[in-house]
Amino acid sequence: MNAGNKQVPEKKVLEAITPKSQDISRWYTDVVLKARLADYAPIKGCMVIRPYGYAVWENVQRILDEKFKGLGHQNAYFPLFIPESFLVKEAEHVEGFAPEVAWVTQAGKDPLEERLAIRPTSEAIIGHMYAKWIESYRDLPLLINQWANVVRWEKVTRPFLRTTEFLWQEGHTAHRSHEDANFEVRQMLEVYRSFVENDLAIPVVSGRKTQREKFAGALDTFTIEALMPDGQALQSGTSHDLGQNFAKAFNINFLDSDGERKLAWTTSWGMSTRIIGAIIMTHGDDRGLRFPPHVAPIQAVIVPVVYKEPGLILEKAREIKTRLAKNGVRIHLDDRDSFKPGWKYSEYEMMGVPLRIEIGQKDIEKKQICIVRRDNLEKSFIPDSELEETVERLLDAVQKNLYAQAKTALFEKIFPADSFEKLREIIKDKHGMASVSWCGSEKCEEQFKTETGATVRCIQEDSSQGNCVVCGSSAKGKVFVARCY
Amino acid sequence: MNAGNKQVPEKKVLEAITPKSQDISRWYTDVVLKARLADYAPIKGCMVIRPYGYAVWENVQRILDEKFKGLGHQNAYFPLFIPESFLVKEAEHVEGFAPEVAWVTQAGKDPLEERLAIRPTSEAIIGHMYAKWIESYRDLPLLINQWANVVRWEKVTRPFLRTTEFLWQEGHTAHRSHEDANFEVRQMLEVYRSFVENDLAIPVVSGRKTQREKFAGALDTFTIEALMPDGQALQSGTSHDLGQNFAKAFNINFLDSDGERKLAWTTSWGMSTRIIGAIIMTHGDDRGLRFPPHVAPIQAVIVPVVYKEPGLILEKAREIKTRLAKNGVRIHLDDRDSFKPGWKYSEYEMMGVPLRIEIGQKDIEKKQICIVRRDNLEKSFIPDSELEETVERLLDAVQKNLYAQAKTALFEKIFPADSFEKLREIIKDKHGMASVSWCGSEKCEEQFKTETGATVRCIQEDSSQGNCVVCGSSAKGKVFVARCY
Repeated sequence: MNAGNKQVPEKKVLEAITPKSQDISRWYTDVVLKARLADYAPIKGCMVIRPYGYAVWENVQRILDEKFKGLGHQNAYFPLFIPESFLVKEAEHVEGFAPEVAWVTQAGKDPLEERLAIRPTSEAIIGHMYAKWIESYRDLPLLINQWANVVRWEKVTRPFLRTTEFLWQEGHTAHRSHEDANFEVRQMLEVYRSFVENDLAIPVVSGRKTQREKFAGALDTFTIEALMPDGQALQSGTSHDLGQNFAKAFNINFLDSDGERKLAWTTSWGMSTRIIGAIIMTHGDDRGLRFPPHVAPIQAVIVPVVYKEPGLILEKAREIKTRLAKNGVRIHLDDRDSFKPGWKYSEYEMMGVPLRIEIGQKDIEKKQICIVRRDNLEKSFIPDSELEETVERLLDAVQKNLYAQAKTALFEKIFPADSFEKLREIIKDKHGMASVSWCGSEKCEEQFKTETGATVRCIQEDSSQGNCVVCGSSAKGKVFVARCY
Repeated sequence: MNAGNKQVPEKKVLEAITPKSQDISRWYTDVVLKARLADYAPIKGCMVIRPYGYAVWENVQRILDEKFKGLGHQNAYFPLFIPESFLVKEAEHVEGFAPEVAWVTQAGKDPLEERLAIRPTSEAIIGHMYAKWIESYRDLPLLINQWANVVRWEKVTRPFLRTTEFLWQEGHTAHRSHEDANFEVRQMLEVYRSFVENDLAIPVVSGRKTQREKFAGALDTFTIEALMPDGQALQSGTSHDLGQNFAKAFNINFLDSDGERKLAWTTSWGMSTRIIGAIIMTHGDDRGLRFPPHVAPIQAVIVPVVYKEPGLILEKAREIKTRLAKNGVRIHLDDRDSFKPGWKYSEYEMMGVPLRIEIGQKDIEKKQICIVRRDNLEKSFIPDSELEETVERLLDAVQKNLYAQAKTALFEKIFPADSFEKLREIIKDKHGMASVSWCGSEKCEEQFKTETGATVRCIQEDSSQGNCVVCGSSAKGKVFVARCY
């Protein structure tokens, strides 16, 4: 970038974005950059989350954090660095993560005696501390969450969806019995599911991962999977039953009430900034973003329609702002006079603001307010006196409609398949997700990938009905198969 | 640590802490560990911030974040990594920070082409992005803050006060004129001062740093300095006028309204988890911590005094909890039956909870509630009907009293000195902070350090009155001199 060559338009024009219907991949990059959600950083695979994008993350944090604390979890902070000797203690864990680890080998001018991993996830360091903190059954359950940055050196990256560094929360809990741990794992998966469906308006399928796809070091991983419009699944939140694997590796034991020393049962669960990629992909349309009101950085924007005398109109606009802010609405008044109202309409549509409030001379005379919904572009004129309740009702309506639309789109992309030929057709031609019977063997699982590029996203149900679509032997369960991000 | 050898007491006893009056250094370590604010991590100089300590940081974040946003700042997130070629662009900056940088040199199995610094501070990476984002004067001021972890490889560390990795916020702003930038620098220093004094109840002195002590790469650094009971100053928040140094290094320019391309003026300002060390040090006493109510993780604890029939008392305790929670009090009910009330009293005193509410059989009969203040141990019995208002009043009283006590302590430790002999006495014998005249030369500044181990904490005022206590030539200003953390 050569700042000396920057072109500085006196009045910016709304740069066109590639229509989503035409090229979803270019559309995605366009909206991320032009709505200023994020920008590329000068480090391979890293992004900068700009204020408008970070505000989405702050809303995600606020809602999730309250849910976690409501269930008894507390936040803490563990080191960014994990000594190599800790990472290697759980064999599967290190095997899974080592290829993606960024290593610190030097501090100042001195080489380090032992190299330090930048945490790709924190089971190892947290396991070490839990072994120190947990003494008896009275210390259990131990329910801790951390909001942090993590680094995984990825080959192919895209803003939000897959970045070398990303932000997330990682819950880490320790329990007295496997039953308790299991309850936690399923409870947190349900927290994710209800958050993603109710607050992000993204419908998901959920279930257990196969052994091949589970978290490195877990007994079992449970996942919620969203399906993007291009037919690729996006793993949106995972909850891991770590069994006693990490308890063994780090010696997390406790004195039980029967006087015996036992190994604890641990879990971990996480959701990351990748979920913002899912919001963008799921709801956006040809005009740009469409944010669900629960997490929209701006829920309503006021655009004064000023052609001559601005005083009265601006005064009214400010009054509307105050009234809605008081009602808890995240409201923005765009009173810049260097941009025309029509330009602003397009801009905020592109930015995905759920409601636009237009206020002009005629509206004031008629004691009315004009509100335009972003989800369906419906325009309505409402009496001034009904502003607050209408905005509340419309925000709710937008939230519900986005979910309904996304749910319809999801159902239209999930197909049952009773043969491998049909499965191939669903994945390759229909760009969908297939629901198929599977024998449970790694060999057949491998075939999905080799032949279609798709993987088992999750086990839908354990059932012995039907026959494996690959080998024809009797099935152990039904699985969702799709390509993925 | 060998978990197999852990001693597990059936009932924990309150382990004695070293009295603060006897050995403040050991006292500090004792309270940090025993109140579970933090623990040592298995990485040199790193700590784990445990839930009780992290809750303090969450309160700090909540209050500061609201102040920042109220002044128009927005949060964003920049990468953890800074390529070496960026760090070196501002000469003073890299000279100051390079000795403390942790370097990533490898990812997975591959060596990196260019090594990456773990951010010790983010001026370099943010400067690069600002050059890209700022086009014209309409994009200014650009007011961004980031909550993040940073790493500085320190030789001597102590939990909170100085750790290799720490959490902080760093504000980074760009302006059209030096005047605007200067206003921001002073405004943010004032935000810090008022936060530290009003919310943390820690009185500070404030002023400009000398050129020797300023931030590496700044024109000028402004600071607030608290004085710990052992006479050591603690730099508690800094606000930097970066002039055009980083704008030059990263080419942050803008097209002004006069059609000319100009360099921007930038600032940065930060406060870190180190401030938690200041809270601990300033307010604690021989019994342990004393948290100012504004940031106390628990503002009031309820201890049911149950000797025989627990039902009625626990019911009352829960009612009190509900009433106070509804009133916005961070309240905790300790209904564990494995610990005696007396043990709990000591435990929560050690943990610094501002108010303790005791409720027993007799209190219920008399329709009264017993409240004990942590700051002065005053006990009062109040009518049940006055619970909410009394708790609110007492929390306010504790907050004010902690500040008043700390202010008295500060005044008792600041002395004017008109000779070097007196200065030496103040630093070495009285363990205080000296207010002295100084000629402004680096040579005399060096003498403070060589002869007393103290440094200029800040320039109190620019004035030509008096003579330099070192060389006797006419003074350029009054400065505060003290040893520091």
